[in-house]
Amino acid sequence: MSKAKGNLAVGQSGGPTVAINSSLCGVIQEAMAHDEIGEIYGMYRGIRGLLQDQFIDLRRQSSEVIEGLRHTPGAALGTVRYKVTPKDYERILEVLKKRNIRYLHYIGGNDSADTSWQLYKLAADAGYELHVIGVPKTVDNDLWATDHCPGYPSAARFVAMAVRDTGRDTEAMGPESPVKIVEIMGRNAGWLTAAAALAREEEGDAPHLVYVPERPVSVEQLVEDVKRCYEEREHVVIAMSEGAQEAPGKTLGEEYAPKEVDAFGHRMKGGVSDFVATLLTGRLGLKVRLDKPNYIQRSLMVCASPIDLEEAYRVGRQAVKEAIAGRMEGMITLIRDPGPEYHCSLGVASLGDIANRERMLPPEFMNEAGNYPTEAFFAYARPLIGELQPKYVRLTKYFV
Amino acid sequence: MSKAKGNLAVGQSGGPTVAINSSLCGVIQEAMAHDEIGEIYGMYRGIRGLLQDQFIDLRRQSSEVIEGLRHTPGAALGTVRYKVTPKDYERILEVLKKRNIRYLHYIGGNDSADTSWQLYKLAADAGYELHVIGVPKTVDNDLWATDHCPGYPSAARFVAMAVRDTGRDTEAMGPESPVKIVEIMGRNAGWLTAAAALAREEEGDAPHLVYVPERPVSVEQLVEDVKRCYEEREHVVIAMSEGAQEAPGKTLGEEYAPKEVDAFGHRMKGGVSDFVATLLTGRLGLKVRLDKPNYIQRSLMVCASPIDLEEAYRVGRQAVKEAIAGRMEGMITLIRDPGPEYHCSLGVASLGDIANRERMLPPEFMNEAGNYPTEAFFAYARPLIGELQPKYVRLTKYFV
Repeated sequence: MSKAKGNLAVGQSGGPTVAINSSLCGVIQEAMAHDEIGEIYGMYRGIRGLLQDQFIDLRRQSSEVIEGLRHTPGAALGTVRYKVTPKDYERILEVLKKRNIRYLHYIGGNDSADTSWQLYKLAADAGYELHVIGVPKTVDNDLWATDHCPGYPSAARFVAMAVRDTGRDTEAMGPESPVKIVEIMGRNAGWLTAAAALAREEEGDAPHLVYVPERPVSVEQLVEDVKRCYEEREHVVIAMSEGAQEAPGKTLGEEYAPKEVDAFGHRMKGGVSDFVATLLTGRLGLKVRLDKPNYIQRSLMVCASPIDLEEAYRVGRQAVKEAIAGRMEGMITLIRDPGPEYHCSLGVASLGDIANRERMLPPEFMNEAGNYPTEAFFAYARPLIGELQPKYVRLTKYFV
Repeated sequence: MSKAKGNLAVGQSGGPTVAINSSLCGVIQEAMAHDEIGEIYGMYRGIRGLLQDQFIDLRRQSSEVIEGLRHTPGAALGTVRYKVTPKDYERILEVLKKRNIRYLHYIGGNDSADTSWQLYKLAADAGYELHVIGVPKTVDNDLWATDHCPGYPSAARFVAMAVRDTGRDTEAMGPESPVKIVEIMGRNAGWLTAAAALAREEEGDAPHLVYVPERPVSVEQLVEDVKRCYEEREHVVIAMSEGAQEAPGKTLGEEYAPKEVDAFGHRMKGGVSDFVATLLTGRLGLKVRLDKPNYIQRSLMVCASPIDLEEAYRVGRQAVKEAIAGRMEGMITLIRDPGPEYHCSLGVASLGDIANRERMLPPEFMNEAGNYPTEAFFAYARPLIGELQPKYVRLTKYFV
């Protein structure tokens, strides 16, 4: 320990995923390999742990527990949604100095990149040497400068598997309850919803319609789309982003929401899928069923993409390597190598370029009608989630 | 074919599961092994296919497709919820005779057993020889005379896995959004909801509270339970049956439902979890999050219990064997063998004993407070869903 230049703090932020603990494992295991690093502190509940001087001693954990993080969903250090403001700066510096923290790794999305960026500038302005290298994580997949975000491939894999399977359920029910809406996470970005289309193996498979926030569709178009699909095959499976819109800033079907308040005076909101279900039943007379897996989307470990767990681990390790190599600030990025075989190399971008920026689904990833992803999206996303196995069968309708 | 005594018809009914096609495969493969059976007809969309003389020729399907049914979710023949009444009898007899159907296997739950029972009596009264042997299927697990119902173990396994994993998500979020309600299928019977408790591996794990329809709890007790759990660990995961009640026939928290109608004049209903979320936020000021996996519960193949898929296949085969052996009516049952190793033998019960009867969670499977299953339930259910792998880890809170 005598060679140590200082201590390391690692934290997790925002929504948990199946892969964020794999990144944590990468940070810890890499940190243990470097004599420059003294203590390894886990920020308890993210930046709040730093503000409250609450750290978990990660050197005291067994190696089995550290290794087990690679297949444990959630966020083992606890997480937080807290926006650092200048009033916190003094306290932050105080704790950093008290604990001699010289390496700081925050695992998270845009907001976490912003927090990391503030911490880096704060320390630099105060002349306190602090290496701040962020680790990307978000199922929303909306971080700038990286091919994709750890956490996304696994959530995308869940979405594809769930839509494939609940699609078979809807197909079996037929005209009795012919419309299924699967509501998918992503208030602003449609990356996760688009992944539902990876469920389709052959023509006619679910999903039949996919709506993302980036491409508002009118109520009239939606009704027309569903009507056409129903007439084609007597059932319709819709993957709908929780943030689907009919015009920029206007939630799809929001005028079909209940108008009254509950017993506590709160307006009952429901999700966009509730409104759309009401709309479709009213306009087409079709029974609509909803699946809202919500937080199960980002936590069901059995659906994890092996590529995702491995990449999450690699970006965690790389963050420590970059800090040890002398880099003062940055976020690790994934850079897809050219060629037919999928592989990503690791890069690094400035935190300042990532904070407060969102990467939306590009226009060429959705079709002209705005109701289904394109081949370009499939080429992007398929290698991330891997094959869906086993292949299902369908009876041929040889009627007697 | 010249030895054939007649043709066989098989149908699927009610909600699809991950295992109902495995039973269909069992029926078809067993039927193919008996010269007594001529054509093998699949009733297209259940009893409706019989009424409309719509049958899929199952002998023309490839053996790969038939075998692939064992791992394909949904209901490959299409399913139906239709209650046969005496006005249908003449038409049914007409089609049975026209197609020379002498073996009839309907895969389903209570309602399907009732349908099968009516068909058997109808044929017997008309002096038409028809063997009617039902195949059990329901995620609700509420069939009489069988240890459990194919379909239940897999849905139960999904529920346990989902609650385990989304529980880690809630734990990570901590006091920021500390209450999670997972709404689970089962309007009258709590078997599936109780299975959530199989998620718990160590003290403190999710779920913390489990509410089933058979054990109404008052609003006061519910609020008290949640408050106590929150004070203990700053987060609470609740497994709640969609049919949870505060008094027999009264949905839990229904007075907290929105009072107004939507744009089409429908009362917006929401599920019991919406009401309870509103109630808890209002009474305790805690942020509540909901997971409503709905139909994903019964269709996500990756969560299938291997025991379930195998048993579903066996009961399908056995139904044909019983018919060939001369039995005129019945439903195949699973009988758990005594001894430490889990194994079920197959039996048969009269359809008349199963139709129109429900098997509720017995009182000894829930604790006195009515908010958690007992060891007796675990002993019953654990062998059915199998081990949850991999085991997760948790950091020890060695605070610095």
